[in-house]
This record gives sequence, C-alpha cells and structure tokens, in this order.
Amino acid sequence: MPKYIAPVEDMQFILHDCLNITDHYQNIGYEDAADTSLVNAIIEEAAKFSSEVISPLNYPGDLEGCRLENGQVTTPKGFKEAYQQYCEAGWSSLACPAEFEGQGLPHSLSVVTEEMNSSANTSWSMYPGLTHGSISALHHHGSDDLKNTYLPKLISGEWTGTMCLTEAHCGSDLGMLKSKAIPQEDGSYSITGTKIFISAGEHDMSSNIIHLVLARLPDAPEGSGGISLFLVPKILDTANSTIHTDNNVVCSAIEHKMGIKASATCVVNFEDSKGYLIGEANKGLACMFTMMNVARLATSVQGYALAELSLQASLDYAKDRIQMRALSGPKAPEKAADPIIVHPDVRRMLFTQKAFVEGSRGLAYYVATLVDKVHAGKDEDGQHDKRLGLLTPICKTFMTEIGFESTNHAVQTYGGHGFICESEVEQQVRDARIAMIYEGTSGIQALDFLGRKVLRDKGETLVSWIGEIKSLAGQVDDSLKPAATQLAGRCDEWLQLTQQVAGNAMKNPDEIGAAAFDFLMYSGYLSVAHVLLQQANTALTSERSKDFIQAKQETVRFYFSRMLPRIDTHKQLAIAGEDTLGCVEFGWE
Amino acid sequence: MPKYIAPVEDMQFILHDCLNITDHYQNIGYEDAADTSLVNAIIEEAAKFSSEVISPLNYPGDLEGCRLENGQVTTPKGFKEAYQQYCEAGWSSLACPAEFEGQGLPHSLSVVTEEMNSSANTSWSMYPGLTHGSISALHHHGSDDLKNTYLPKLISGEWTGTMCLTEAHCGSDLGMLKSKAIPQEDGSYSITGTKIFISAGEHDMSSNIIHLVLARLPDAPEGSGGISLFLVPKILDTANSTIHTDNNVVCSAIEHKMGIKASATCVVNFEDSKGYLIGEANKGLACMFTMMNVARLATSVQGYALAELSLQASLDYAKDRIQMRALSGPKAPEKAADPIIVHPDVRRMLFTQKAFVEGSRGLAYYVATLVDKVHAGKDEDGQHDKRLGLLTPICKTFMTEIGFESTNHAVQTYGGHGFICESEVEQQVRDARIAMIYEGTSGIQALDFLGRKVLRDKGETLVSWIGEIKSLAGQVDDSLKPAATQLAGRCDEWLQLTQQVAGNAMKNPDEIGAAAFDFLMYSGYLSVAHVLLQQANTALTSERSKDFIQAKQETVRFYFSRMLPRIDTHKQLAIAGEDTLGCVEFGWE
Repeated sequence: MPKYIAPVEDMQFILHDCLNITDHYQNIGYEDAADTSLVNAIIEEAAKFSSEVISPLNYPGDLEGCRLENGQVTTPKGFKEAYQQYCEAGWSSLACPAEFEGQGLPHSLSVVTEEMNSSANTSWSMYPGLTHGSISALHHHGSDDLKNTYLPKLISGEWTGTMCLTEAHCGSDLGMLKSKAIPQEDGSYSITGTKIFISAGEHDMSSNIIHLVLARLPDAPEGSGGISLFLVPKILDTANSTIHTDNNVVCSAIEHKMGIKASATCVVNFEDSKGYLIGEANKGLACMFTMMNVARLATSVQGYALAELSLQASLDYAKDRIQMRALSGPKAPEKAADPIIVHPDVRRMLFTQKAFVEGSRGLAYYVATLVDKVHAGKDEDGQHDKRLGLLTPICKTFMTEIGFESTNHAVQTYGGHGFICESEVEQQVRDARIAMIYEGTSGIQALDFLGRKVLRDKGETLVSWIGEIKSLAGQVDDSLKPAATQLAGRCDEWLQLTQQVAGNAMKNPDEIGAAAFDFLMYSGYLSVAHVLLQQANTALTSERSKDFIQAKQETVRFYFSRMLPRIDTHKQLAIAGEDTLGCVEFGWE
Repeated sequence: MPKYIAPVEDMQFILHDCLNITDHYQNIGYEDAADTSLVNAIIEEAAKFSSEVISPLNYPGDLEGCRLENGQVTTPKGFKEAYQQYCEAGWSSLACPAEFEGQGLPHSLSVVTEEMNSSANTSWSMYPGLTHGSISALHHHGSDDLKNTYLPKLISGEWTGTMCLTEAHCGSDLGMLKSKAIPQEDGSYSITGTKIFISAGEHDMSSNIIHLVLARLPDAPEGSGGISLFLVPKILDTANSTIHTDNNVVCSAIEHKMGIKASATCVVNFEDSKGYLIGEANKGLACMFTMMNVARLATSVQGYALAELSLQASLDYAKDRIQMRALSGPKAPEKAADPIIVHPDVRRMLFTQKAFVEGSRGLAYYVATLVDKVHAGKDEDGQHDKRLGLLTPICKTFMTEIGFESTNHAVQTYGGHGFICESEVEQQVRDARIAMIYEGTSGIQALDFLGRKVLRDKGETLVSWIGEIKSLAGQVDDSLKPAATQLAGRCDEWLQLTQQVAGNAMKNPDEIGAAAFDFLMYSGYLSVAHVLLQQANTALTSERSKDFIQAKQETVRFYFSRMLPRIDTHKQLAIAGEDTLGCVEFGWE
C-alpha cells in the first residue's frame, strides 16, 4: 500500500538552490528564518509528521468518513489525536503573527508543510487549513478587540476557524447571498441564515469553532457591494467570564461526497446567532478577498501534492509489477516478465506526473515568496502583489487540472488494481477532483485571470512576467539552449496571443469567457516550463548528486517535448471565438 | 436528479439517415430486421425499458452496492426483478443465433440497446453484457453438445455467463496464468485456480452461472500458446437428470471499487471443478479473441453512453442554475442572475460532451455494421474484418478516454454540487473510470492498434480508411466545404504521420510503445471528425426538423474548431521519440 515519503531533497533544492530562500528571508526582514539549518529542520520534522502521523490515517479516514449525530460530527479514528499532536508541536502557529503568539515565520515555509500535509492526508489537512484562512482575514481586518480575543486560540489551534460563504443558491455568485445580520444594541449583530459546503464547519477536534460568515445588513445595497463579514463563534466565550454559551450555530447535515470524505463538509444554520463585524460594513467581500490569494495558493498546492502522492505510488508499482516483455527484448530475463516500467507508455504517465509535480512545486514556492514580500510590507510599488495576483489563478487552475490528470495516470498505471479501493490510488483521484472546483472553479479562475489580471491591467503585469521568463531563458547553460530557444520563441508567441485575445475581447466581452480557460492553461504550461528550465540550469552548478542533476535535465527534455506541445492546442482554442459555442440545441443560437 | 432519456431521434437518424440500416440488413441477409418500423419499435421499447426500469435503480444501486454473505452475492434492490423483466421481454436473446432460440437479429441493433442500458445503469448492464460475450465464444468454438446444453439457457437469460481470464499476477499478460486443467477419464477436465476481477462472477439473478475459464493443460507450452478455454458451470446440470450438483466454484470475495459498485466483481475459486474444453487445446486465447472485438466495442459504447448521461444531466443543470450575468449583459433580466449556460466556458464543456457523444455514437454504430457483415459471412475478402480490427482499438481507447473527460465536464458544470453524491454526476465519473482499463487498457489497445493493426498490416487497412474519409469529404455540401477541406488536408497529414511513425518503429521497436497512445488518439479524433461531417451533410438533405439539422451543423463547427486542434498536440507526441522517456530517477536512463 502506498506510503507517503516527503520529497525532502526536491523541496530543499527548490528553496535553497533555486530560490536562495535564506537570503530572501534576510532581505525582507524575516531574520529568524534566515537560517539554513532551521529551514531544513522544519522541513525534516514536517516530513516526519506527515509520513508518520497523518499519512497512515488517510486510507482508513476515507473508508470511515465523518458521522453526524445530534449535531455533533465525529471525525475518523485518529484524526483528533493527530490534530492535538500537530498543535502541540507548534505547527498550527508556524506562519502566524508573533504579536498573537504565533511563530512569525514566513508563509513560504508554511506552504512547504501544507504540501506535505495535503499529500499525506488531504482530508485531515482541511481542518488546520481553513483555520489559516480565518486567521489571515481576522488579522488583516478585525478590530483589536476581536484579534485579542480570538487570534491567540486560533493560532494555538485550541480553536479552529471556517469560512462561511456559500449558500444553496449561490456559490460563484456571492452577490446573491441572503443570510441576514441585524445590528444589536450592544454593538454586535444577530446572524441568521443557512450556509452550505462549510469545510470543518463542525467536528470534534477543538473546543470551539470560529465561523467567518458573509451576510447582509438590513439596509445593504443589492449585489456584492452589500455583503459584510462577521465573526460568529460556535460557543460564546466572553473574555471576563467562564460562562460558555451556545450560540445557536447548528450543523444540520454533512455532505456525502465523491472524495475528501474525512473532511466534514457541513450545512451550518445560524439562527439569531451573535456575531461581530469584521472590517467595514458592506465591504465583506473585499475582506474575504484579502485571504483569497493565500487560500487559492493552498488549493493549488493540493493539486500537485496529490500528484506527488500518486507519482510515488505508481512509480513503486511500475517497478514492482511484472507484465509482458519490452518490445525491444527482455529487460529482466531472470523474471517471468519485465516490470511494467519498461513500457514507454507507462513511463509517459509517470513522467507526466513527475514533470508536473516538480514544475508546480517550484512555481508554488516562488509564488509563496511573493506572499512573503507582500506580508512583510516589502512591496512599495505594488509589483509583487500584482504578480501574485497574476500567478494565483494560473496556479489554482493549472495545478488542480493537471493534478487531477496525474492522479488518473496512477490509476491507469495500476490497471484494474487501481480501480480497487485497497490500492488507495483511486482515492487520490476522488480527493483531487474537488480542487478544480472549490475556492473558485477553473472557469472562474480563468475569468479572473484574463478579465481582471490581464485585460483590466492592460497586460502590464503579464508582459513583465513574460519578459522575465524570456530574459532568464537567455542566461542558461549551453546544454539547455535548445529548450531555452524554444521557450524564448514561445514567449514571443505568448505576447502575440495576448494581443489577439485582447483584441477579440474589445469587440465582444463574451470572447473573454470563450478564451479564458485555454489562455490560462497556455500561460500555465509556459510558466511551468520556465520553472523547470531554471531548475535544470540551477542543478547543473549545484552540489546535488549526479543522478539528481541528470534527472532534472531529463525532466526538461520530457516536458519540452511531451507536455509543452499541448499549448499548440490551447493557443488555437484561445482564439477559436465565441461564435463556435452557439447551439440551437442548447437554446443558444 | 438526472433521469436518463434515450436520445431516440439521434439514434434513428444515425441508423436510418446515415447508415441506411434496413438496406444494409437486406443486403447481408437479415431480412427480418430490414423493416424500418421494426427497428424503430425495438429502439422505442428499449428506450422505455432503460429509462423506466433500470435508470431509477442506478443511483440507489451505487449507494447499496453488492453484498457477499456465505459465498452468495446479493445485488442491489430491484436488480433481480429488472433482470427478469429484461429476459421476459426478450432482450437477452435479441442478437442471438436463431438455431438456439435467439431472435437472430443483427448485432448493430443490439449495440443500440446496449448503449441505452449502459447510459441508464452501467452496473446493471454488466450482468447481461458478460453473458453476451460467453454466448459468442461458445457459439463460435463450442462443440455441438456444449452448444445444445448451454446456449438456449444463456440466450433466454435463465443462466448468465462470465469470462474468467485475469489472475492476481496477470491481467494484460495472460501468458503468465497458472490455473490448471487436468484431463479426466470421462473427457471432462478438472479445473483448479483462482480468478480475480470476474464481473458477474456470482450474483442472485439467475439459477446458474456458466464460467468461461482460461487454464493450462498439464503439458501445455509456456506462455500464451499454452492456454486453453473451458466451460465451467457453477452448478452441474446434466441433461438427463434433475440432480443439480455443486461444482466447487466459490466466490471468496467481492472487490470494493471506485465505481460500478452495483456490478459484482468477484474473486472466483475453482477447486477440482468439472470443466469442458471449448475449441482446441492450447488455442484458448484465440477463442477468447473471437469475441474480443465485440466485447471491446461494448466497452467503447459504455464510454460515450456515460457521456450521454452526463450531457443530459449537465445540460439540464446549466439551463436551470442561475449564477452571475453574461459578460455581454443580462440574458435573463427577469431573474436574479442568468442561467449558467450563458457563460461560454460552460457551453464549451457541454459542447465537448455533445460533439463527442454524437460522433462516437455514429462511429460505434458504423463499426457494429462491420460486425454484422462479418457475422453474416458477407466478408469474402476479409476487408470488413480488417477494418473492424482497425477501428475497434480506436473506439475502445478514444471513446473511453473522452467519455471519462466528458463525465468530468458534467461535475465541473455542477460546481460544488457535482462533488456531492446526491447530484449523481460524480457517480458517472467513477463508473466511467473503469472503461479505460478493462477489456485491455488504453495503452494495450494502442499497442494493438499501432503494432498489430497498422504496422504488421503494412498500413493497408489504415490507408484504405483514410482514403475513404478523404474521398467522402470531397462529396459534401458546399456549406460544409471549410470543414471538408480541413479534413482532407488532415488526411494527407495522417498518411505522412503514419509513415513517420512506421519509420521510427523500424529503427527501434520501443518507438511503437512511445508513439502508440498519441497516434491512436490522433486517429480517433479524425475518425470522429469524419463521422460528424457526414452526419451534418446527411442532415442537410434529411427530413429532420430545422433545429435538428442546424444543431448538427453547429456541432461540426464546434468540433472542427475546438476539438480537432487537439491533434496538433498528439501529432507531435507521436513522433517525440522514445528517448524523451528515459529518466535516471526511474532507474531507466
């Protein structure tokens, strides 16, 4: 059965060799983190926790799922204890603000541990994951009073958090939400409404759950400009009292889902529940969006983290399982058949996972350094934030789409055995499926990318990213010149395509929707190509082992010859036009 | 909740308007079937059975699954009764030989009903489906005695059949199988061995189960040339006796699977079980391969049949669910938001399903007419059989791969709701996943296609298929000329690519494995392009409704501008070379 082993060397290679991470920490004022041995110790400890504590709970957790009885959710066996261990070891507070008892370490370190947790046990990782989002929103927008009351316990992990956005009739379109908030005499609000799809909305891991809830004030304008953000604790816990009062927050159902079955996805009813305004009235969406980049990056990480798990499982299987001979003659003549890794089509599937994972990891860690810079206030001209905004939807869609493809390659490599639950690889497919949906579907991300981050920006941030990729491609070792030349040529094509897409959008706004997904995927493949090229180049002058260095060269060769050609299709679709999508049969001529 | 409605008009359009099916039946000697009203009556009755009887059992069947207790498998509630109804209505005997009490109708009619059953309830359809395969093998290779004893009850559905090929250590590579057959004095054989992944290996629907088992005789040569095929009944039922004897055939386990949970996938143990040789000793694989084209075509049909179901579900949802406004301004101003079908990205997903389904249906029905011709003995020069052999692996891989993609588009269209079991669309993804694996994985099909059907054939059968596509493209209506010209140009490219791939294979046999999957997919997209072009052209002069005719034109426009460009990627990968698949990290430099 597959066991997750954190790919510590690749993580360290990317952080140290590629990103010079300790220099980066030094430069932006995270002096504590600017210590190679500390960074490595954190990675190695997190690796142990993920593989020893939560990885063994992954498959049993899927089988057992969550149970709801009398409004109480029971998580699978071992989840609660693992969470206690996680908090006691200080993982919950890693990248949290020091003034509220966090460790004040940079977000990019937290992303590495998030990756490990997502690979080892995506369902389990949802519980602390959601809390991170709540901490971030509260820290940026909450009053000092709210922060002092709630942040320390959220950061220690004693309490967990949620994000209550979706209602039955609105997910992507939050402007339609109906939950109500009525101002009370004491300055608090009475919150009433039903929220669905609330991850970690109810569970047995913590003594309280702090819900961040989007709702409308009585006189709020219609649409998304009339939504406010409230903090609504499950249990009221006043600072000066030991009286804990139930706040009429009730989990009325948990969803039966395709995957991440051990993550409790709750229907949460608020009925005259006491809440506190976070940020300004009617600016709730903006408050939520503060943490959106970070939440979307976390989902991106889930995408390739599950592909890492599926790669490990299928690589082991492909070396072990014997079936038929290589067409070029026996490779393991001493056995009854050759291991299936001899078959090129099996290696095609393994390599797709490997190249995707390593490129995505590199891009995600790079994006996390942009988060570091923004968090550290080292972004005077706002360029880092703009690039972060540009790359976030690319990561979210590209990494979750290809992550799902990758987990399916593992099932295919296992053959019939992959379809059987005991193989554990089919679970990876089911767990990976949601990442293309939550935190904004691939289609929504693509609209954000093309509409907001490219067109509204007049292409400036994208052009700067393309320019940097082209310029860095010109600086690689001679042995990588063929790939570099290809990439530079693609950069010119990318600029041209951007102009074409923009031109079409000027004529008809619906062309944005008709182009967005493929234009994003096109941009994703090229962004990852850049990262892999830089990794191969960095490896050449590194002190890594000969095999490690060679593998990075082979990954570039594979990616440029077998994954990059996919963009020739995406390119054509990005300019295929909205008029190819009309159909009388859809009632849409 | 999605309910399946058989797409009767499209089925009739393809059979009558495109394939002139009654003329075809007349020409090959199926005079009984050469009756338009009979064909239509069969389709309409099958449509009722699928939507009214088995479709309602699909979702509950997935929830309930199968149970194994004391060696007995209980199928989900209603399955047994539906099966009785199916047999009583004569569906089990439709395309079975008349001399054994079948109705003697052509296979192409049976494929239409198989499609409906697969769409409505893939799990349920497995039970009669496997019986068809057994009937076919027995009919072609069994002794008169065996045929007389077993065929009538298999054809009436009183008994069901299985195919027992796979063992734990061999699936694709049957040459390694270990089950033993020892000759007995009475001319029978004692069969001992354990078979896995046996669909319908044990269940409660019929009074007996007739297993077709691959096993080795004591002195059999090693490898695939030493395998023989045996008929092993679960219960011995001698013709001249009423004594029913247990034959030591025991279901020791059923698999817990990702999907088709209501189909019992059994571990079957044979322990000194009485069996009868089918066909010649050591020629068992050849006997099995007789029915392989038909079994693989049935699996191909499953692929697009599930996409038809997912298209119906997501099209309904996209018209009903309101969320956000069209970027070009409100389309349903009277509602709080527009139905999501206004968003081009949603239509991209719907259209992908629709174009894929209609093209695949057309290709599958055409391939079924080749089966008809071969079955009817109207294939003097063997050309129909060769084309059938060429197109079968294309159908199997292309239709199951894109079928899986299509079911995922439905989940994506549903958004978060699609991840919830109650939506029923996530079940379609899980059910569709196995079709890329069983009856030979996509990789195995691709090797069969490129290695056996193209290269060993010196390209003759493929070149004739390409030639026919190009020639027919030249004969379409002027309004379709742009697509026809594109297709004709692609045909030249296809020929060129075939030569390149063949040239590479001459240098190194491993190039076959490195090229096969993408070369097959390339060929699949073009084969379906041909079918859709012909459908659009036929529609123009048909008496179908204006909307039907227009929809076919729009489907061609979509497919040629938004699906066909995918082959520009497959083309590059088919010649990317085996040397891009070596990696030191895989222990494979």
